[in-house]
Amino acid sequence: MTPSQAYEQLTKEVREISLMDSIGSLLGWDQETYLPTKGTTNRAEQQALLARMSHERFTAPRIGELLSTSQAGDLACDAESDSAANIREIKRLYERANKIPAALVEELSRTAVHAQAAWVVAKSRSEFKTFQPWLDKMLKLKREEAQCVGYASNPYDALLDVYEPGETAAGVQKLFDSFRNRLVDLTRRIVESGRKAPVELLERTYPIAMQEKLAREAAREVGFDFEAGRLDLTIHPFCCTIGPSDVRITTRYDERNFADGFFSVLHETGHALYEQGLPKKEYFGLPLGEAISLGIHESQSRMWENLVGRSAAFWDYFFPKVQGGFGNVVSVLSKGDWLFAINDVRPSLIRTEADQTTYNLHVMVRFELEQAMLCGQFEAADVPAAWNEKIKSYLGLTVPDDAHGCLQDVHWSHGSLGYFPIYAMGNLYAAQFFEQARKDVGDLDAMFAKGEFAPLLSWLREKIHRHGKRYSARTLLKRVTGQDLNADAFMRHLETNARNYYGV
Amino acid sequence: MTPSQAYEQLTKEVREISLMDSIGSLLGWDQETYLPTKGTTNRAEQQALLARMSHERFTAPRIGELLSTSQAGDLACDAESDSAANIREIKRLYERANKIPAALVEELSRTAVHAQAAWVVAKSRSEFKTFQPWLDKMLKLKREEAQCVGYASNPYDALLDVYEPGETAAGVQKLFDSFRNRLVDLTRRIVESGRKAPVELLERTYPIAMQEKLAREAAREVGFDFEAGRLDLTIHPFCCTIGPSDVRITTRYDERNFADGFFSVLHETGHALYEQGLPKKEYFGLPLGEAISLGIHESQSRMWENLVGRSAAFWDYFFPKVQGGFGNVVSVLSKGDWLFAINDVRPSLIRTEADQTTYNLHVMVRFELEQAMLCGQFEAADVPAAWNEKIKSYLGLTVPDDAHGCLQDVHWSHGSLGYFPIYAMGNLYAAQFFEQARKDVGDLDAMFAKGEFAPLLSWLREKIHRHGKRYSARTLLKRVTGQDLNADAFMRHLETNARNYYGV
Repeated sequence: MTPSQAYEQLTKEVREISLMDSIGSLLGWDQETYLPTKGTTNRAEQQALLARMSHERFTAPRIGELLSTSQAGDLACDAESDSAANIREIKRLYERANKIPAALVEELSRTAVHAQAAWVVAKSRSEFKTFQPWLDKMLKLKREEAQCVGYASNPYDALLDVYEPGETAAGVQKLFDSFRNRLVDLTRRIVESGRKAPVELLERTYPIAMQEKLAREAAREVGFDFEAGRLDLTIHPFCCTIGPSDVRITTRYDERNFADGFFSVLHETGHALYEQGLPKKEYFGLPLGEAISLGIHESQSRMWENLVGRSAAFWDYFFPKVQGGFGNVVSVLSKGDWLFAINDVRPSLIRTEADQTTYNLHVMVRFELEQAMLCGQFEAADVPAAWNEKIKSYLGLTVPDDAHGCLQDVHWSHGSLGYFPIYAMGNLYAAQFFEQARKDVGDLDAMFAKGEFAPLLSWLREKIHRHGKRYSARTLLKRVTGQDLNADAFMRHLETNARNYYGV
Repeated sequence: MTPSQAYEQLTKEVREISLMDSIGSLLGWDQETYLPTKGTTNRAEQQALLARMSHERFTAPRIGELLSTSQAGDLACDAESDSAANIREIKRLYERANKIPAALVEELSRTAVHAQAAWVVAKSRSEFKTFQPWLDKMLKLKREEAQCVGYASNPYDALLDVYEPGETAAGVQKLFDSFRNRLVDLTRRIVESGRKAPVELLERTYPIAMQEKLAREAAREVGFDFEAGRLDLTIHPFCCTIGPSDVRITTRYDERNFADGFFSVLHETGHALYEQGLPKKEYFGLPLGEAISLGIHESQSRMWENLVGRSAAFWDYFFPKVQGGFGNVVSVLSKGDWLFAINDVRPSLIRTEADQTTYNLHVMVRFELEQAMLCGQFEAADVPAAWNEKIKSYLGLTVPDDAHGCLQDVHWSHGSLGYFPIYAMGNLYAAQFFEQARKDVGDLDAMFAKGEFAPLLSWLREKIHRHGKRYSARTLLKRVTGQDLNADAFMRHLETNARNYYGV
């Protein structure tokens, strides 16, 4: 078999395994949107079966042989060529997958479905003990996974690597250390300014049907293709790709909180625009058709949510629509008050609703707790107390109940431990990309004010989306901006906002 | 390996294959409810992959070996025991599956997704040519399937057998011949009576939100478990089982046609009650956990839709709810007018909206056309003209366009050729079972009038549902009613209605 033949066989095989995984994505989407309560057990079995079949096929010796033969020829020479990138990334996943026994993969998958269902109940009742046995079990399985994969000194690295390839807990720690003090200091100055954003404006009664209409309009305006995607309701908003032209986002609406639904839709739309912009027509199921990393993914969602969606320019265009939609609810508001309200900064309990400034402190809490859990410093039962203590020390707040504390996020129920750092990294990537876009594309504010979002989207597609996994996250950033990952652009953005809204 | 060990292995293997198939059911449900337009191609690939994998596993020689060994022991001795029934039915399916090449299975599955999507477009535009190439292709594949499976003289038998095991086209023909004249005669007498049901009452404006509320209430009242199922919107209503506690029904609503949505929900609920009543806890994925045949399945849906749902007793209980729900739309109606309207008999164009009397004529049209198509007497292109001619001769109506003609049913797009007879057979089974239930359970009308549907449902569960595929359809009927399949009970029901409403 020639290297070309091997590569062709390899990609055919990997595409088919990915197709199987994409079926798992539909099962997952359905689980979080429409699955009847009593359907959970069967869903767990369906997911476990798919996960096992996919893992068995991907870890077959044949894949290893095809990889070796593919690598032997010219296809892998130019490291940034399509074929070399595909081979490199398949190899990376293959080596990892081969360290994890099929039974563990199956058990993780099955446990995730049950744990997620238990989490829904636990959160709705604010009752940690309902979730605790599942978190215990998940923790045990994830520690086992980290042992199987192996690591130098920190088991966290073995899990983080799945979401943000090449990153380590030590690297994340260093990055967080580089701006934690600036963040704390900025937050303090804002609080001490004595100015309060008129957030009560967002807590009037905003009928959900109109919230949904406007959120859909916003998603469409920034570029979401509804013929190749959907928007549905869920508890914890997410974006999920089921096929090259089937990218689904989800949200929730709260009649007394306009911002929650609207910005979660913009956020998930940011993810979806990345997915819809990846070269999936050509490369669905192969690394070149997939996102680089979750940090880069998050840079896209946070950019549309915060850097675009909370900008004055965006609301030059969109505020009249909100005024039209809600009639007398907002007709008497000034755009200035509205902008201040959606750019409010104040320590709060819920990460997904946190402002841009304090958001990263929520991530740091989770990062530290997860490390302690994975290293066996404490067990599931210890989580609520540890959580509450850290929130007190980082944000100065007392957690009233677990629904507003350690039960707020879906991640651990899915087994996504080592995941949270990508949120903070996404913020930094977003700010660096966005500063560069301002240089390359021209006056973005003038464009947004006219409802022109296509120039920014085109730039993102050209610079980021179309490359799939060709480059590593940090290499891509360097290519696009000439810089290494750092918090400067992000802090500049926050400081500009602080000056504009709080005069500090 | 002992027979017991073989049987254990066999059922484990078959359960896992069924689990794979149940994933395909979710893909199918999603395709007809929520799949974005552009997602069709990938869905076709997902379905084709699953179908191929399932077929490959099920046709593996190992299954044949396990079957042989299982049969050799005591397990298959008592033909009506759990194990014997499972072995018998698995063997039947195994032998059939082994006659069909995996490539054909995969192609049928892929084609069905594309054909179904094309049908949706074709129907919405009433444009047969959009569907024609897919019907052509499907027809070719189904003829091929019939050739692979083999048959004595009529290729139709090879397909019908999937839906109604043991039945043949000749048998269906004979059954139809036994009551076609009585049906035609009854219809003629009704038309000649000169009485017209006040159907315009059902065509007032019935807001869809309230239709949905009432339809859900009706489904719940007759016994549908919403924690183990769902009700969603689609174009062509169906019921679909995704897991032992995940049975989903779908419907459509038309603001100007109360009966369409309401009775389609009752109909699909009838299917769902059967699915929810099968012993799936114990036997999900095995023949004993599955419906006997589609004819028996249809007997359940038609019973709840027509024999219960259109009875005077049902409306003693439900009419006040409709009056309450629609306020002045129906407040001035008499229950007598309402009953007459929902029991209207008149030749019409759409099978799913046809009255109980003329309904079977629609089935006969399709049965004859399908036989002609499968025998190669004509091709897809000839369908519209042949359809229109038969509707003229059977129902005396002129078909105005293909949306109201040969494009009205989804079945052919799915490849469900040889399927339609089960609808007519279901009507007959339903009437025979229902007459027996009246004898066994007591005064059903008095119960319905009080909203008590549990006694009938319990009887159905005891007599029919809990047996899964233990008996053949005709054997079950004989056991429950002491009779062979015949049209007498059905005709008695129609004739009683004709006397009550039309005085003939």
